[in-house]
Amino acid sequence: MYNLLKGKKGIIFGALDSNSLAWKVAERAHQEGAQIVLTNAPVAMRLGAINELGQKINAPIIPADATNNEDLNNLINKATEHFGSKIDFVLHSIGMSINVRKSRHYTDLKHDDFLKAMDISALSFHRTMQSLYNLDAMANEGSIVALSYIAAQRTFPGYSDMADNKSALESIARSFGYYYGKKSKVRVNTISQSPTKTTAGSGIKGFNAFYNYAEKISPLGNANADEFADYCLTLFSDLTKKVTMQNLFHDGGFSFTGVSEEVMEFFMDKE
Amino acid sequence: MYNLLKGKKGIIFGALDSNSLAWKVAERAHQEGAQIVLTNAPVAMRLGAINELGQKINAPIIPADATNNEDLNNLINKATEHFGSKIDFVLHSIGMSINVRKSRHYTDLKHDDFLKAMDISALSFHRTMQSLYNLDAMANEGSIVALSYIAAQRTFPGYSDMADNKSALESIARSFGYYYGKKSKVRVNTISQSPTKTTAGSGIKGFNAFYNYAEKISPLGNANADEFADYCLTLFSDLTKKVTMQNLFHDGGFSFTGVSEEVMEFFMDKE
Amino acid sequence: MYNLLKGKKGIIFGALDSNSLAWKVAERAHQEGAQIVLTNAPVAMRLGAINELGQKINAPIIPADATNNEDLNNLINKATEHFGSKIDFVLHSIGMSINVRKSRHYTDLKHDDFLKAMDISALSFHRTMQSLYNLDAMANEGSIVALSYIAAQRTFPGYSDMADNKSALESIARSFGYYYGKKSKVRVNTISQSPTKTTAGSGIKGFNAFYNYAEKISPLGNANADEFADYCLTLFSDLTKKVTMQNLFHDGGFSFTGVSEEVMEFFMDKE
Amino acid sequence: MYNLLKGKKGIIFGALDSNSLAWKVAERAHQEGAQIVLTNAPVAMRLGAINELGQKINAPIIPADATNNEDLNNLINKATEHFGSKIDFVLHSIGMSINVRKSRHYTDLKHDDFLKAMDISALSFHRTMQSLYNLDAMANEGSIVALSYIAAQRTFPGYSDMADNKSALESIARSFGYYYGKKSKVRVNTISQSPTKTTAGSGIKGFNAFYNYAEKISPLGNANADEFADYCLTLFSDLTKKVTMQNLFHDGGFSFTGVSEEVMEFFMDKE
Repeated sequence: MYNLLKGKKGIIFGALDSNSLAWKVAERAHQEGAQIVLTNAPVAMRLGAINELGQKINAPIIPADATNNEDLNNLINKATEHFGSKIDFVLHSIGMSINVRKSRHYTDLKHDDFLKAMDISALSFHRTMQSLYNLDAMANEGSIVALSYIAAQRTFPGYSDMADNKSALESIARSFGYYYGKKSKVRVNTISQSPTKTTAGSGIKGFNAFYNYAEKISPLGNANADEFADYCLTLFSDLTKKVTMQNLFHDGGFSFTGVSEEVMEFFMDKE
Repeated sequence: MYNLLKGKKGIIFGALDSNSLAWKVAERAHQEGAQIVLTNAPVAMRLGAINELGQKINAPIIPADATNNEDLNNLINKATEHFGSKIDFVLHSIGMSINVRKSRHYTDLKHDDFLKAMDISALSFHRTMQSLYNLDAMANEGSIVALSYIAAQRTFPGYSDMADNKSALESIARSFGYYYGKKSKVRVNTISQSPTKTTAGSGIKGFNAFYNYAEKISPLGNANADEFADYCLTLFSDLTKKVTMQNLFHDGGFSFTGVSEEVMEFFMDKE
Repeated sequence: MYNLLKGKKGIIFGALDSNSLAWKVAERAHQEGAQIVLTNAPVAMRLGAINELGQKINAPIIPADATNNEDLNNLINKATEHFGSKIDFVLHSIGMSINVRKSRHYTDLKHDDFLKAMDISALSFHRTMQSLYNLDAMANEGSIVALSYIAAQRTFPGYSDMADNKSALESIARSFGYYYGKKSKVRVNTISQSPTKTTAGSGIKGFNAFYNYAEKISPLGNANADEFADYCLTLFSDLTKKVTMQNLFHDGGFSFTGVSEEVMEFFMDKE
Repeated sequence: MYNLLKGKKGIIFGALDSNSLAWKVAERAHQEGAQIVLTNAPVAMRLGAINELGQKINAPIIPADATNNEDLNNLINKATEHFGSKIDFVLHSIGMSINVRKSRHYTDLKHDDFLKAMDISALSFHRTMQSLYNLDAMANEGSIVALSYIAAQRTFPGYSDMADNKSALESIARSFGYYYGKKSKVRVNTISQSPTKTTAGSGIKGFNAFYNYAEKISPLGNANADEFADYCLTLFSDLTKKVTMQNLFHDGGFSFTGVSEEVMEFFMDKE
């Protein structure tokens, strides 16, 4: 508790249940003095426990389909009305691939579903920022963060079209970051997070094996959801006002470790 | 003339007119001993002069909409039939953004058009490779190249959603390159080319100013279309069999030059 | 004031005068509740005003030549003795090139001086961490930060051999970060900072022109020394425990902006 | 055999024995029509079989210590005298770490030996280019290549200070590439090669295990010395005149593969 976000107002997308990264961020931001508006897709809200979170941190819940610009405008208008002021920070934690869900191989994708996943996982971030920008809803020096993954830089079998969607997402962060920086010194970044034991993450085939692999590669071990929330706070705070247009790795060193001694041990008997 | 591609067969997408990168590649590949099949979108073919090229290098022209999987299957089937063998190389030089054409600002895009541009400029590359893969149409150790641009890594105002599309394109090259490498040692790369005075490039607002800027930054000057074609040949040849999943800059040093002395001169009077 | 570093102990290298990045970090870390030991090279201390800072924040000053392992061992031993505990954070803000000082052109360097600059600017960071490691002086989950610059990734004429030294420095951060993470969860990062109006920075020929250029490219403008200090605090805090082995850009978006509209205006009349 | 280097003259550093990358490059360049001058450190020449290669490809051998500027000037003067013309290409394949040889752990290095390794492995490349530049010995549009390794970007335990040396080497390629491009359109690149079963490579502890690991990660398998030579030819040829200031991965896809299905199998039983 540092009062790091005292008086700040934020919108948090994607809190599905208490394992969600977004859920943890909402809780920690609240602890640090922020007021929150929660949002999620109507369909996700039916599955989730978001109402429980809303009560706990005294946050209204405004459903919005992040691929629907009207929904986003409505969300933002209601949020600024609720806060009585502009918005200081936004967390975009949204991603879904129908091809991954249906376990289609990357060499046998349905392209309509690829485009849907691109819209949900990447363009939704552009849509959100475009709404914020055109409604002039972000406070000066505000901060916008989206969730990404190392598969945007390197290939991980099984991550499939989500890799391509995350690459587009990171590009959108850079592109919009340029314009939002110019307009009102708003910064835009993505966090490339370790595989995390969330309800969404665990749904991917082979997740546990991959989680264990990443744990063995990363010198600090995988970053968990609580640590993700802490790191988000720094990006929402006033201490990082010149950090923008970046993809920031939050993964215990995974991305810059070529191989670890633990993983090499599997190959030593071959010598 | 080195006979670098002697006996090889290739499909080349995107030869619009004699200024096109793809046009130059087709000519040079032919000179180096390759047989070519040309293709372009039906609509682009009406505008272009592709028939002239087809006659010059004795290449059949098979129209295909690269966002239509049936068209792509048809193209590939006809090409392998024509060649009487599998395909050794493919050039994907396709990109189009309706938002750029209509000069919409990046903060005010139409998202349907963004998705269309993503399909045309990025997913078309996945569609093409998926067709090739599932029809088992690529020869072992074949080579696939797509055209990209530095805006995939850094923001250039005016390039708009094409930046995000190119980021997705480069990711698709990595993702598919993994699977195609495993299957039949096919390599997949993108070339990040200097701004080039093609009909497509010149259509972007502020192109000339940007061309001059890039010329002043790049220690070797901008790479032109003939040089692009030469570089493509090396990637199609047997000399680069272990180069894959990369984005290769072909830009006279632009991407790794922070600033040049020539550009700094504009700022010197301020000192 | 958040009490972000309450109870933490840190060593800060390189506070020359009140314009120094390290000076600002020392002040801010003290404000946030940390105890500090200051250090600098004996020769730099004679020039500087470090005693004034020491009094202000109640920090002992222990001279050390960062290219001398004995000096570093002595510094670390005295610091842990002073603190009565291990060290939580270290800032390495050291860099010097004789070739740059003497305005030798990059194509006409003295290689003995290049090696000296490499020792002072890069290996000193390895030496410092090796001393800390072997004296087991860092607390678990401690944080080590060094100062870098975008010239490590792209060429900026005038920055000369410092570019190569900074590349080695960033590599040392990754390499040692791996081992220190494994040993005691210590993270190691570099911050790639905007050109800053420090006494050291201003000494480089053409600094003002370059400062103005960077200001015009960066959507948020250049990051200043106060902002650098704030960002350092987040990396020293408990909120970033899984951030390691990275080079983090703190530059208002400079590194990911290909060109800005302001800079393009210089080229527009050419169209 | 394409006559790709017909009439070109090149200097090749580092051919120790018939397993060397440089040896293969010399042979292939000769086959492609180039004239070669071979060079190596006097001490390496006593160990190696370079005379055999010299006779085979009719190349004079001029010893030079690449950390000695006079030796380098002598080499270059004699080479241009021998050729009766300027030099078209140079291969720098030099690297050595005393700390690695003595199996010192990265957290317990001798810094004098680190500096020597930096001089031999990185600054020697600057020294070579500075000699070429000041003697005006490179032909217009010439090509200079040095050998690098992925450890310059990510940490591989055991590669130790060579990682930091290679980072500096790659930076030197960028920095000098800028100036040499401006002066006479000479391009400078590094190739980041797979672990290769050379006499030098095999000397590193755990090499075989690592070789097997890389083979399992890379979709195309490791690149061997013959393939390295082929790739070098393309960079020395007239087909890559606008490729410069880059580090080019030649590793079968290793660098852009996060993990392969084969390696994941080791972790599957944990699920």
